[in-house]
Amino acid sequence: MKFRTLLTVIGALVATLGCAMLLPAIADAVSGHEDWRIFVAASLVTTLVGAGLWASSSGAIHALTLRQAFLLTAMIWVVLTIFGALPLYWSELNLSLTDAIFEAMSGITTTGATVIVGLDNAPPGVLLWRGILQWMGGLGIVVMAIAVLPMLQVGGMQMFRAEAFETPDKILPRAAAIAGGMTSIYCVLTLACAASYWVAGMGLFDALVHSMTTVATGGFSTRDLSIESFDSAAIDYIAVTFMMLGALPFVLYLAAVRGHPGRLFMDSQVRVFVFLVIGVTLAMAFVQTRIDLYHGEEAFRHAIFSVVSVMTGTGYATVDYGAWGPAAVSTFFVLTFVGGCTGSTSCGIKVFRFQVLARDLYQHVRLILSPSRVYVKRYNGRPMPESISTSVQSFVFLYILSFFVLAVLLALTGLDPVTAFSGAATAISNVGPGLGDIIGPSGNFQPLSDVAKWLLIIGMLVGRLEILIVLVLFTPRFWRG
Amino acid sequence: MKFRTLLTVIGALVATLGCAMLLPAIADAVSGHEDWRIFVAASLVTTLVGAGLWASSSGAIHALTLRQAFLLTAMIWVVLTIFGALPLYWSELNLSLTDAIFEAMSGITTTGATVIVGLDNAPPGVLLWRGILQWMGGLGIVVMAIAVLPMLQVGGMQMFRAEAFETPDKILPRAAAIAGGMTSIYCVLTLACAASYWVAGMGLFDALVHSMTTVATGGFSTRDLSIESFDSAAIDYIAVTFMMLGALPFVLYLAAVRGHPGRLFMDSQVRVFVFLVIGVTLAMAFVQTRIDLYHGEEAFRHAIFSVVSVMTGTGYATVDYGAWGPAAVSTFFVLTFVGGCTGSTSCGIKVFRFQVLARDLYQHVRLILSPSRVYVKRYNGRPMPESISTSVQSFVFLYILSFFVLAVLLALTGLDPVTAFSGAATAISNVGPGLGDIIGPSGNFQPLSDVAKWLLIIGMLVGRLEILIVLVLFTPRFWRG
Repeated sequence: MKFRTLLTVIGALVATLGCAMLLPAIADAVSGHEDWRIFVAASLVTTLVGAGLWASSSGAIHALTLRQAFLLTAMIWVVLTIFGALPLYWSELNLSLTDAIFEAMSGITTTGATVIVGLDNAPPGVLLWRGILQWMGGLGIVVMAIAVLPMLQVGGMQMFRAEAFETPDKILPRAAAIAGGMTSIYCVLTLACAASYWVAGMGLFDALVHSMTTVATGGFSTRDLSIESFDSAAIDYIAVTFMMLGALPFVLYLAAVRGHPGRLFMDSQVRVFVFLVIGVTLAMAFVQTRIDLYHGEEAFRHAIFSVVSVMTGTGYATVDYGAWGPAAVSTFFVLTFVGGCTGSTSCGIKVFRFQVLARDLYQHVRLILSPSRVYVKRYNGRPMPESISTSVQSFVFLYILSFFVLAVLLALTGLDPVTAFSGAATAISNVGPGLGDIIGPSGNFQPLSDVAKWLLIIGMLVGRLEILIVLVLFTPRFWRG
Repeated sequence: MKFRTLLTVIGALVATLGCAMLLPAIADAVSGHEDWRIFVAASLVTTLVGAGLWASSSGAIHALTLRQAFLLTAMIWVVLTIFGALPLYWSELNLSLTDAIFEAMSGITTTGATVIVGLDNAPPGVLLWRGILQWMGGLGIVVMAIAVLPMLQVGGMQMFRAEAFETPDKILPRAAAIAGGMTSIYCVLTLACAASYWVAGMGLFDALVHSMTTVATGGFSTRDLSIESFDSAAIDYIAVTFMMLGALPFVLYLAAVRGHPGRLFMDSQVRVFVFLVIGVTLAMAFVQTRIDLYHGEEAFRHAIFSVVSVMTGTGYATVDYGAWGPAAVSTFFVLTFVGGCTGSTSCGIKVFRFQVLARDLYQHVRLILSPSRVYVKRYNGRPMPESISTSVQSFVFLYILSFFVLAVLLALTGLDPVTAFSGAATAISNVGPGLGDIIGPSGNFQPLSDVAKWLLIIGMLVGRLEILIVLVLFTPRFWRG
């Protein structure tokens, strides 16, 4: 039975998660919090279950079929969320099961929406654990985007398929190989970020936790006021820098390490992303100046911080951009969907897919005017097959459909339209805060009903799995084969 | 110079519009309103300008090039709006120029958003003129959708191209031929609707005006309270029936008249449309029952009326569905985009395009699971070429992009997000009312600023011209040839 391979992989990952729980246990023990016991307990349970799964499958690793690859990808995210919620559920915060799962899912999908009120007084173990969940989720998504999604042909990702690895049975060896290189780059980025925060005046613990949630474009903070509470321009700019770095394609870092740093600046996705960030930042800085709220550097800093935070799907806040007027609010709502680059830790539809849509539109207009001509679409200098367009368009359609369905379902639970629509957008795009008084940048997801929270949990998962992976699992065709 | 043909066609249409202005003049004269003078004056000006254009082009009709066909289509809508606004601008209502253009554009695009407060006391001439504008706009859109759009290959409409008429130089003769048959069917529907309203107890004048705006799925009413003011279940159901009839593909009526009534029931677009209406109606009836607002037949009637009114883009109201709770509000917001069938008087993305997107998505999922198989997509029993998918997807992308851009621009004028987003949706989809207190079903567009009104005027025009026609006109490539 080849399902053994699934158990082996999941067992290994669960065991790793269990070992990682010892870090918050140490943090709690050092600072004298009783919660270190529950982290040790959770670690024991998780590691043992993981090891048990591994053992029951006798550690077998076979090549995966396409269907198994889909199933494994979805299961990893669900299983790790459940075990990741364990210490949160047991902790002194007295979270309900729904809240613990919500917080763990928000962490591991790098969404950053929180139900915990009173972060400033929360035990350090819980704060560190939330950071670790996002950090691992961020690494996981990079590996998934580079090694798994291109082979599953999800949403045009086949454009990023290296020619040497064309078939699904290569997914596991390729994922393992990529995970190695990626983990090194990811660790270097995280340490650089932590060191910068520390130098800029953050405490060592805060610097560490924030570095993990910055590079992962996750957005969990150790403070209720998020990055705003540090009130430091330097820290704001460091956060902007590393959120941006987390939202660039990680393969290009690998290329840069291997001696091709130029590719990072030549990449058309990176260019469009940076161009978008600058453009919207200037507009938002202008908006603040016009309503006489902030001026000069301060307006620019708040603008770039909020724009990068929302576009990369991080979800930190310095100031409540709800106060910048309806135009700013609407712009941030639209930005929620945009996201960063493919193959990064960021979320949303992603710049690459908008580029494909723009190329299709351009070609469509040209064809309308000169129906008999033949056009070849190119992306990053290479010809782009028509199948990429079809994939991307199906993906975006499905994305918008999921958004609308989730928004209507959330509204059915009694939420007002702004909360329902922005909540659906922020969950599916894994951004974090929504709009309005309840779940806005200065709000919290705690007041929502359990039903709404579960809908958002599903939304976060579906968004992180690029929707199609979940949809494929729900087709009769998938289970027939 | 072939531009003469454009002048001839526009001249003839403007002159027709001018002659039509005599009808409200008669209505005002009969009821003793002084406004009959301004309608006669406007008629004289309009007819003379139209005749002048015709004469200056010496009535020449040549075959159109593709570019001329684009230009003509857009110009017709703009020019007729300007002249249609003339009597509104001069009338005793003292509308500003912006308001007069807004009302005329809302009429001729069959949107149905109004800036006139106090319809109940408005002179009959103005009320009739608003009805005539929508009626002519509805007929125009049917002819455009059947004769012009398929040849311009806009948004997948080439699927509806009759094989005998493949080239743009056939647009004018074909439009003329189709306009004849369509006008007869359209008149029969309108008269049937007026007679039904009259039998159900509406006054003759109200019945006539409402029949014109019902069949055109326009939504202008002679009362501030819209159809609600008649407080008659029979009138509600008559409105539902004829809004539905206005939103079905008119070519199928032609086929029915020619002895193939079965095609109307076999058409896959019609089936999906009816299925959607029934499904959402039942859900909305349930929502009203659950919150204990209406029950039984009354809940069903309000539900089907509101659903059909929004989906077909009519925009009448019986009750303010804003009171049905956030889930209903969100559903109606989503319905704004759906629209009726292609080749009808209705607006929005339209059912056909959603069917194409659904087929693409289905094919995409199948391809993910079995990459080596070849699939042929079918629509209404015929194979659907890949180019249709590409066209439709570009169209929908552009639609959503235009919606977001318009929403952000409206928010920039200071509107709250709900008004800005629902206003953008209702303008581009030519529905009529938006959401919220200002422009909701029981509201009015009068309080908006002039800038917001002009943005909505552009939005209505762009939406009615299926966006691509306007976009094509703004490409350098268009003017280079």
